[in-house]
Amino acid sequence: MPANHDVRRDALRKVLVEKDLDAALITRLVNIRYLTGFTGSNGVLLLTHDDAVLATDGRYTTQAEAQAPDVERLITTAVMTDLVRRAASTGRVRTGFEAHDVTVEAHERLLEAVEGATLTALGWAVEGLRAIKDDDEIELLRRAFRAADEAFAELVATTLSGRTEKDIRTDLERRMLAHGADAASFETIVASGPNSAVPHHRPTERVVERGDFVKLDFGALVEGYHSDMTRTVVVGPPADWQREVHALVAAAQQASIDLFRPGATSADLDRAARDVIDNAGHGEHYTHSLGHGVGLEIHEAPSLRKDGTDTLAEGMPVTVEPGVYLPGRGGVRIEDTLVVRADVPESLSTSTKDLLVVA
Amino acid sequence: MPANHDVRRDALRKVLVEKDLDAALITRLVNIRYLTGFTGSNGVLLLTHDDAVLATDGRYTTQAEAQAPDVERLITTAVMTDLVRRAASTGRVRTGFEAHDVTVEAHERLLEAVEGATLTALGWAVEGLRAIKDDDEIELLRRAFRAADEAFAELVATTLSGRTEKDIRTDLERRMLAHGADAASFETIVASGPNSAVPHHRPTERVVERGDFVKLDFGALVEGYHSDMTRTVVVGPPADWQREVHALVAAAQQASIDLFRPGATSADLDRAARDVIDNAGHGEHYTHSLGHGVGLEIHEAPSLRKDGTDTLAEGMPVTVEPGVYLPGRGGVRIEDTLVVRADVPESLSTSTKDLLVVA
Repeated sequence: MPANHDVRRDALRKVLVEKDLDAALITRLVNIRYLTGFTGSNGVLLLTHDDAVLATDGRYTTQAEAQAPDVERLITTAVMTDLVRRAASTGRVRTGFEAHDVTVEAHERLLEAVEGATLTALGWAVEGLRAIKDDDEIELLRRAFRAADEAFAELVATTLSGRTEKDIRTDLERRMLAHGADAASFETIVASGPNSAVPHHRPTERVVERGDFVKLDFGALVEGYHSDMTRTVVVGPPADWQREVHALVAAAQQASIDLFRPGATSADLDRAARDVIDNAGHGEHYTHSLGHGVGLEIHEAPSLRKDGTDTLAEGMPVTVEPGVYLPGRGGVRIEDTLVVRADVPESLSTSTKDLLVVA
Repeated sequence: MPANHDVRRDALRKVLVEKDLDAALITRLVNIRYLTGFTGSNGVLLLTHDDAVLATDGRYTTQAEAQAPDVERLITTAVMTDLVRRAASTGRVRTGFEAHDVTVEAHERLLEAVEGATLTALGWAVEGLRAIKDDDEIELLRRAFRAADEAFAELVATTLSGRTEKDIRTDLERRMLAHGADAASFETIVASGPNSAVPHHRPTERVVERGDFVKLDFGALVEGYHSDMTRTVVVGPPADWQREVHALVAAAQQASIDLFRPGATSADLDRAARDVIDNAGHGEHYTHSLGHGVGLEIHEAPSLRKDGTDTLAEGMPVTVEPGVYLPGRGGVRIEDTLVVRADVPESLSTSTKDLLVVA
C-alpha cells in the first residue's frame, strides 16, 4: 500500500511556516517512519521547505532506498551532526528540533560539534499530525484489530480453566500471529481471579479456576500499526457481583462513547465514564485514565483523562477503556478503539461486549 | 530468584563517591529495573548515600511494593519533579542525572519547576555496572538462550522449503514461547535467498526454495533478559560458494573468539574477525560491527567495533557476529554470545556452527 509520505511532509512544512522555521530536524524514529516510510533503527530526517534528506548508516543503504525512494538519502556514521552541519551551511539558521526526544547529552554534543547551529524546540508537531489518521493508516489498523478480534474469538471457544495465565497469553499471541499479526503490539495482559484487580498485571503461573474473572488486554501489530483492546470474561456462571461490576463498566464506557464526536473534549469524555462509576460508589476503584490514541505507537495523542486538554477530531482512533478493580476479588476493564467520524464513530474492535462465560 | 538489588545500589553509591555526588536521579527504566526490580512503565529512582526512593504513579502501587519492597516508595503524578524537589530540600545540591536519557524538554521543565535544583551529568554509570553480570543474571540469560537453541533445533528438523519467511518467523517464535520465552527478544530476522544478503532484513512473503541460504537472527526474552543468536542454513545441498562463504564467516568468528578473555579490547577483537574477511577479499561485504553486550537490553555495553574503546572483563556476555553479504546472491552471519571468563569463555548459545543442510 503506497502511503502518503509526501502529503505528510507537506503538512509538516505548513507547521514550519506557522512557527517561522526554516527546517525541522526529526529524530524520533516513529516520526521518521511516518514522514518517509523508513523503519531502520538509526536515522535523522532534515526537512526544509523545498527538500528532505534522510541520514542513516551503511547497514540501511538498501533498506532506505527501498522504503524512502522519494527523499534524498545520506549515508554517514554521524547522522545528526552531519544534518545539522548541512542545515547551518546553507544559511538556514532557524532549525526546529524535537526537544522531547533529543537528550541533554546529545544536544550538548551537537552544539559543540556544529558551530553556528541554532536549534529551537519544534514541539510535538509530527505527533500532532499523526493523531489524525489517513485512509491507509485506518486500513492497517483495521487489519491489526481484525487479527486481535479473531484470536480472541478462538481463544474464548477453548477451555481456560486449568491453564496458567502465561499459557493463555502464549495461546492468544500465537493466534494473533496466525491471523496476520507481525507481533503482539505490547506485552499481553492475562489477569485471572484476584489478579484481575491489578490494572497492569503481568501473566504469571497462576492457574485459572472456575469463578475467576479473566481480564485480557492485548493487541496485534500490523505493518507498524498497533491494535489495543480489553475484554474480561468469567469462567463458569458469573456471581452477582461479577455481573454488576461488568455491567457498570460497560455502562461507563457507553456513556463516553455517546459523546464520541468531533469537538468532544478529553475531560468531558473522561468525566462521562467516571461519573457513572462514581455514582455507583466505585470511584476509588477506577484508578487510571480513560483512553489514548493508537497508531504507530501503542500510546499516542490524543490523551483522554481527567485533566486532559485534547479535543477529538475526525479520523482520530482512540481507546475508551474504563475499569473497576476490587482489590483481592477481581476487576473488569472493557476497552474498544473508536475512530472519530462526523456522525457515528467507527469501532475498530468488533468483539461482543456482553459478559462472556467461558469454560 | 532473589536478585541482588541492594548490592547493585551499593555499587552505584561507590560511583557517587568517585564523582563527588550526593545523589543520583535514575530515569532510564531499564536501569531502575536493574537497581530495584521494578518493571513499571513510569518511575524515577533517587539514590543517595543512605537511602533510595522509587517514585511511580497510582497504577503501580501494588506492583512497586511487590517488586521493590526494600526501597522507599513514593506514589505521585509528578515522579521526576517530586524527587528533584526532595533532593533539593534536604540540602543535597549535587545530584547526578542521566543526561543521555532526560530530554532537553524534560530538563528545562525540571529546572523551571524546582528552584535551586542543580543537576549534573551522571554519565552512563548504571550501564557501566550492568555490563558485568552477576550469577543471577547469567542464569536468566542461560534460560533465554536455551529457549532459542531448542526452538532452532526443532525448526531445522522441519521442512523450510515452500514456506514464506513470515511463516518461518512465526513458527520459530512460537517454539521459543513453548520453550519458556516470555516473548521474542527483538524482531526475528528470517532472510532467504537473495534477502539473506541484507544484514537486517525483515521477513516477507518470499517463499523459500531449494538452493537458498536462510539466515535466522533471533532471540528469546526471559524475565527481562535477552538472548541473541544467528545461524545461516542452506536448503538442500550447498553450492561451493555457499560452503566457502559459510566457512569464511566461521573462521572469522573463531579468530575473535580465540582472543576472547579479560583485557581484550574492542578494536582488537573486531580486527581479528575483519582481517580474516579482508584477507579473503570480502572486506567490502562485511558492513557492520562485530558485537555487543546483551542483558536487560538487546544491545548494551560493551560495543565491539572497529573504533571501539571498550575492554572485556570477566562476567560480560557479548555477541560475536561477523557476516559476509553478497548482494543479489546471499549472505551468511554466525552469531554467538560468550561470557568472558578468566580462561575459556562460556558460550551461551550452543547450537552447532556447522553449515546445516535443511529440507
